[in-house]
Amino acid sequence: MKTSCLFAILLGTTCWAANATPPQVNGRRIIQHLEGLSEYGKNPQGGVSRVAYTEADRAGREYVMGLMREAGLEVSIDVAGNLVGTRAGTDAALKPIVIGSHIDSVPEGGNYDGDVGSLGAIEVVQTLKERGVRLRHPLQVIIFENEEGGLLGSTAIALGADAARLNSVSQSGKTVREGVKFLGGDPGRIAEAKRQPGSIRAYIELHIEQGAVLEHEHVQIGIVEGIVGILDSEVMVEGFANHAGTTPMDQRHDAMLSAARFVEKFNLLVTAVPGRQVGTVGWIKAEPGAYNVIPGKVGLGLELRDLDAGKIKTLFDRSREAADEIGRLNGTTFNFSSRDISAPALTDKSLQGMIGATAKRLNLSTKLMPSGAGHDAQEMANLGPIGMIFIPSVGGISHSPKEFSNPGDIENGANVLLGTLQSLDVAKELK
Amino acid sequence: MKTSCLFAILLGTTCWAANATPPQVNGRRIIQHLEGLSEYGKNPQGGVSRVAYTEADRAGREYVMGLMREAGLEVSIDVAGNLVGTRAGTDAALKPIVIGSHIDSVPEGGNYDGDVGSLGAIEVVQTLKERGVRLRHPLQVIIFENEEGGLLGSTAIALGADAARLNSVSQSGKTVREGVKFLGGDPGRIAEAKRQPGSIRAYIELHIEQGAVLEHEHVQIGIVEGIVGILDSEVMVEGFANHAGTTPMDQRHDAMLSAARFVEKFNLLVTAVPGRQVGTVGWIKAEPGAYNVIPGKVGLGLELRDLDAGKIKTLFDRSREAADEIGRLNGTTFNFSSRDISAPALTDKSLQGMIGATAKRLNLSTKLMPSGAGHDAQEMANLGPIGMIFIPSVGGISHSPKEFSNPGDIENGANVLLGTLQSLDVAKELK
Repeated sequence: MKTSCLFAILLGTTCWAANATPPQVNGRRIIQHLEGLSEYGKNPQGGVSRVAYTEADRAGREYVMGLMREAGLEVSIDVAGNLVGTRAGTDAALKPIVIGSHIDSVPEGGNYDGDVGSLGAIEVVQTLKERGVRLRHPLQVIIFENEEGGLLGSTAIALGADAARLNSVSQSGKTVREGVKFLGGDPGRIAEAKRQPGSIRAYIELHIEQGAVLEHEHVQIGIVEGIVGILDSEVMVEGFANHAGTTPMDQRHDAMLSAARFVEKFNLLVTAVPGRQVGTVGWIKAEPGAYNVIPGKVGLGLELRDLDAGKIKTLFDRSREAADEIGRLNGTTFNFSSRDISAPALTDKSLQGMIGATAKRLNLSTKLMPSGAGHDAQEMANLGPIGMIFIPSVGGISHSPKEFSNPGDIENGANVLLGTLQSLDVAKELK
Repeated sequence: MKTSCLFAILLGTTCWAANATPPQVNGRRIIQHLEGLSEYGKNPQGGVSRVAYTEADRAGREYVMGLMREAGLEVSIDVAGNLVGTRAGTDAALKPIVIGSHIDSVPEGGNYDGDVGSLGAIEVVQTLKERGVRLRHPLQVIIFENEEGGLLGSTAIALGADAARLNSVSQSGKTVREGVKFLGGDPGRIAEAKRQPGSIRAYIELHIEQGAVLEHEHVQIGIVEGIVGILDSEVMVEGFANHAGTTPMDQRHDAMLSAARFVEKFNLLVTAVPGRQVGTVGWIKAEPGAYNVIPGKVGLGLELRDLDAGKIKTLFDRSREAADEIGRLNGTTFNFSSRDISAPALTDKSLQGMIGATAKRLNLSTKLMPSGAGHDAQEMANLGPIGMIFIPSVGGISHSPKEFSNPGDIENGANVLLGTLQSLDVAKELK
């Protein structure tokens, strides 16, 4: 080992012989593979409907397994139905580094969410193979099953799948149990998919941003600080239904008016504090729901997301207090259910540094940012350190046939994944 | 004629021989008749479902026709299906005075809306018969068909029924055409039901308030100033649907937030001006309507009611202006459809005075008030002067099995109707 390499290891960067350039992925090939994959579940109006457990999903996975084998990976389907490709390292005693994403889509989804990270990861391995680069760590590429239906595959690996989950009906119409079997898994033995905390060196995922922050700020690479936690709450506003013609304005207990005041106040509370937290009221329903009846009940769905679980709780508490005040104005009451959809999952600081250093070496601009959407990485955080790399989404659009990322950005993302992987391979154990 | 009677005629009041007391209705009998009628369409949980054109409606009408005949009325069913009871006056050259209401109910309605006015009117005639009082004017009691489905019977008499209306499907499942036939009308000749403007001396209707104003203010008789006009508008708020996690708060075009701001502003606009106008947002719908998607579209239903059509228009215009301002805040747009459900129908001032004088003579407290709900009287206003008498609704509840008016109030209302009818009979022609 050259002395410069020793320093590089200590610094967490990668060393290359003076006469060698760092390997680079073949950007054109990723795009060809994205086009190839887009045939499976293709919609007439563009994009794909490659919903997990459908024939399109299974066929797309066959295509991807072919690419994995071409990249020199040994491919298997685990009992949970995940595709797992492994490549031995030079030191079999080391824990594996895992990279990957998913290829299932929402109904009428696009060709980038999940696909970019999946095919980007395979391309990284193909590049290593072509350049004859051996890593010290075993490398695994995992294409997680049914991400869009609730991170099914990564949950099975990181936390274990429960029976309720297996019996739930997925968007394909099949139960998860039937779906896992359909994909070649073994639902009866799904518990065996679970890995132990500390069993992986790290998990790194490349993904499209699904928002417009990078595009707006003309930044090429997002260094994800973490995946936000999500709290959902069903809010029930109760007043008193009455005739809209015969009930004077000052004698009303109008649940709609209270709900409206709350929606506005909730927005004010969320935006009043610094930070990148978001708060949304996504659905609303008034009862009985007619022009000529003052609504007696209004239900609405509130969601809060942030990297800081404490901030989510504070904002939720403030919202409930504000609701009580609003209710007092016209004799209506508010009731909040609450459900922690997911806890925040922070990425590893050392991995953030390696992603940043790699991007810098490649002359790519970066921005530290939260992931507002959920990802398999948040489940994998239960097993070891995680890192996530974002590339820009044009118009911030995702879960739509209009979803698009530029080929140059996709290539950049895969190169950052490759460089980060190599840095990690030679870095000291993460703290 | 006694001299005092001459004065009474000039003053628009009634004269009685010194040794005679003014006739009074039999309050107990009205309650018995209300109980009798409540058997038709009776719900297990209370109240009735006597929806127009159902078997319960037809059977209830048979019962009522029996009461009408007992009161000495000559009963027929007109081509529109209305029950018309006539009693000759002493001067056949005079235009008829019409009193009445309806006996059809909403699904799961109560035993007072319409019924009190219908049975009250019949009781007035029964009392006149028992006391041997002949009026100068011919008297008609009309029990209008299908009031709750949109004032069908009174519209046919006052304005004429159109083909679209006849072909529409009523709440009974039958078309109006089938329903009118079912009740004994002749839909093919329904145009003949229409009467000419100026063809009636006046129409007077007794009704429950359907609001809580009289009860709150401990007033016994409401003198209705008019029946409010109604404007309905479907408001469509358009923004841009986006991921609730990945879209920063300052990059949203949130249709829900704009809709909420509008609902609150609309309430402020309606309550900011003096008067008894009411404004309601009764229904709302967000699209796509999920916790994790910022709504791209929100539709809502707005309604304005007032006695003054100009005020309705002004408030509607102000609401649209306010909406445009709200839209500018976050790049959303508002579109308003508008539909005049009904024009305001003012009651006759002389009739208001006679109702007030009668109540005073009976030692009953009164209040001038609008009717926020629609009534057959508003259609009859096209044919001649109208008057309306309200009695208190307990808790302001109507269109519900919980609808209730006290027996004493019902008796008071019928006595005011009787006295007003007699005053009108001897009064000079209304201006």
